[in-house]
This record gives sequence, structure tokens and C-alpha cells, in this order.
Amino acid sequence: MYIEHVARIADLNARYADTIDADQLEAWPDFFLDDGRYRITTAENVAQGLPLSMIFATSRAMLRDRVTALREANVYEGQRYRHVLGTPLIAAVEAGGVRARTGFIVARVMRTGETMLFATGCYEDRVVLDGPDGARFAEKVVVLDSRQIDTLLAIPL
Amino acid sequence: MYIEHVARIADLNARYADTIDADQLEAWPDFFLDDGRYRITTAENVAQGLPLSMIFATSRAMLRDRVTALREANVYEGQRYRHVLGTPLIAAVEAGGVRARTGFIVARVMRTGETMLFATGCYEDRVVLDGPDGARFAEKVVVLDSRQIDTLLAIPL
Amino acid sequence: MYIEHVARIADLNARYADTIDADQLEAWPDFFLDDGRYRITTAENVAQGLPLSMIFATSRAMLRDRVTALREANVYEGQRYRHVLGTPLIAAVEAGGVRARTGFIVARVMRTGETMLFATGCYEDRVVLDGPDGARFAEKVVVLDSRQIDTLLAIPL
Repeated sequence: MYIEHVARIADLNARYADTIDADQLEAWPDFFLDDGRYRITTAENVAQGLPLSMIFATSRAMLRDRVTALREANVYEGQRYRHVLGTPLIAAVEAGGVRARTGFIVARVMRTGETMLFATGCYEDRVVLDGPDGARFAEKVVVLDSRQIDTLLAIPL
Repeated sequence: MYIEHVARIADLNARYADTIDADQLEAWPDFFLDDGRYRITTAENVAQGLPLSMIFATSRAMLRDRVTALREANVYEGQRYRHVLGTPLIAAVEAGGVRARTGFIVARVMRTGETMLFATGCYEDRVVLDGPDGARFAEKVVVLDSRQIDTLLAIPL
Repeated sequence: MYIEHVARIADLNARYADTIDADQLEAWPDFFLDDGRYRITTAENVAQGLPLSMIFATSRAMLRDRVTALREANVYEGQRYRHVLGTPLIAAVEAGGVRARTGFIVARVMRTGETMLFATGCYEDRVVLDGPDGARFAEKVVVLDSRQIDTLLAIPL
């Protein structure tokens, strides 16, 4: 138990999710360090030790490019996400940051109003809490429970 | 980060949601100040700057009348809600209270046992933490992600 | 408000849920005291004062037997759970432990990738926080919102 670490990582992930849910994608890369890593994979891949990723980015610049592409493709148009996250579990406090795991459920709301359970899984995060710009993700791995890969995964989770 | 503010607002909203989920609607108005405001709107209305509301109440007395009407209409009969809320994000600490935003997902469980994802959105709250009766909502705005207006919205969220 | 109690019970329940969601069922009984009780019932039974349970165990040994049976029956094969829990509400601090209620939503993810809203309800817990092995459940009662009893309830919630 590290009450303050838990509270700060819960806050970081809540702001992260709120930014996506409010469609403020341009602010999404700012939650990462310059050389922050972002990856989406599945629990099945992790269990089998496979390094496969649906999305893999190794810098904030790559994340910015991704947002630009998403805006041009208008993929995001016509839908909203709503994340609800669990309490972070602190796995380790290391020189490179605090490792934490946080479960999530994401609902997707279409422009028509139709709402569906879209994705579930957990974040495997490495967080630098006291960087010059405050808390940032050194790494965020999104481990999806489902193997089903939706093409809409272009949108960040 | 205001760890104690976050904890107290999370507690207030958890008790608020628990009261609704346990069908103790008569206790629901007590979460508001005498002149507390309660409003349900949509993210689309907010984005367009429209002041439209599906529900708008400006006092605890109005909320009590609403509960009486609901009980007489038996709308609530035959279903339960289950809220799960995110971590509150503190937006401002002002003389009139603490402003916070909290994401939510609500499931609806019918008497038959059928369970569905019913509503998603966020609470935009203004909370007076240290009033004579403890923490109370000076204002709660429920911003729904979906534009689809269910007639069952008569029931508080 | 007991900020530290809330944080510790949220942590215990988050680890409990994470263990089930990661299919580490063999570690599940370790969250209970030797004579810990585990029960699954419905809100309807509770409201009517009925002592009916879908599952009722009165010791950690019974929980271990249950896991063995589940593994042999392969019930769990081909699906994953994902819990998201609310903020714990402290009901009482007693000699026998802290009583708390925590709402939850559980999604079920089939091997095909299909994801559904599976169960909602609340945990009525009695937690011994400072036992020789750390925090443990003296009692966990799972109160389901739905009366519909799925045969898959063999799997812990």
C-alpha cells in the first residue's frame, strides 16, 4: 500500500481517460514523456509471451502523428468513449518509475445514441511521478481481455 | 491533486449512487443543499452551448416532489440501477464550493434479470464540503454521452 | 470518512478482483481468513429477509475445494472476467473487522472475443485489516442485483 502513489496514478489515469472521452485527442500525447511508449496488445498475447501489438509507438511525436492521421481520417467522428477505471495496483517502485496495473471498462456511444460495451482490459503503466512537467507515462501497455481486434482500435484507449 | 478533496467527493458520490441503487429515493434529495440545483443534459448540448435540460430542478423541495411523483407513477418498479463511478477530477476550489468532474457508467437490471448498459456520462458537481450537515451538492449536472433520451430518465441518475 | 480504511479496502478488493480477472483462481482463497465466509445471494433475497444463497462457504478449505472442482470441470476455460469496482462505503468499524459495501460491474469476455455485461451488485464485506497475513476477508457477501441465476456462477465473483 502506497496511498499517495495510488492516488496520484489514479488521478493521472482519470485525466488521461477524461481527455479521450471528451474528444480532446490533441492533448493525449502530453500524458507521455518525450520517449514514452504506448502499446496495445491482448491478454492472450501476453500469456503466450508473444510480442505482438496492434499499436506500438515509441515517442510522443509518433502519438501526435497518430492523432493527426485520426483527425484527417475522421475515424473518431460520430462516437464517444466512456472509460471507467479501477483502483491502481502498485507492482513496483523503481528508478525508472512506478509500475502499476489498473483495470478498465470502456463503453462506446454512437452518434445515434446506441451504447455498447466496447473494450475491457488493464493498463500496465510505468509512471514518472515527479518529472519537470508533473506525472507522465514512461510506458503504457493496454492489455485487452478480448482477442477480437476492432478496426476502430485506431482510436486510443 | 487534492487527495483529501478527491476522497471526500468520491465518498459523497459513492453514497449518492448507493442510495439510488438501493432504491432509497426518499433519501436522494438530502444530498443537496436547500437551494441545490440538479440538471440532466447531454454532451452534445454542452458542446453547442445549448442550455437545454431533460430535467432541471433548483431546490431540494423540487427533488422531493419528483420522488413523490415517481413513487405514485411506479416508474421505478421492476428495475434497479447500478452505478460505477470514476475518480473525481478537481476542476476548481472556489468560495461557492469545490468543482469536480466524475465519469460514470450505469447498468439497468430489469425484474426479469435482464441487465443492460443503460447510461454513460459524467457528473459536473459543485460541492460544499463543510456545511452544517456535512458535504452536500450545491449543483449536480449530469452530462450524458448519448443524445438518445429515454423516457425512463424520470428516475434520477 | 475513514480515508485510510477506504484506501486499504479498495486495495484489497482491487487485488481480489485482479486475481480472478487474471485467472489466478488458486490464489483466490488466500484473500480470506481460515474461517472466512463467502456467500453469493441476490438483492431480492436480502430485501425479503431470505437466507438463500447460490453459493455458501464457511472456510478457506471449502474455497480451495471449489477451485479444484472448477479446474477439473474446466468451467472457466474459454472466458475471462473483468471487474470494475466503486469506492468502498464504510458501514461500521467493529471488533470483528471493518464492514464495508462496494458496488461492482463485471464484464465477461468469451474466447471468441464477444464481451457482455455479466453481473452487477455489491460486496458486503467484513475485513480484518491487520491480521498476521495482512488484510483478509472475514466475510464477503456478494449481493447480485439480478435474480437471474446463471449456471456459470460456479466461478467466483
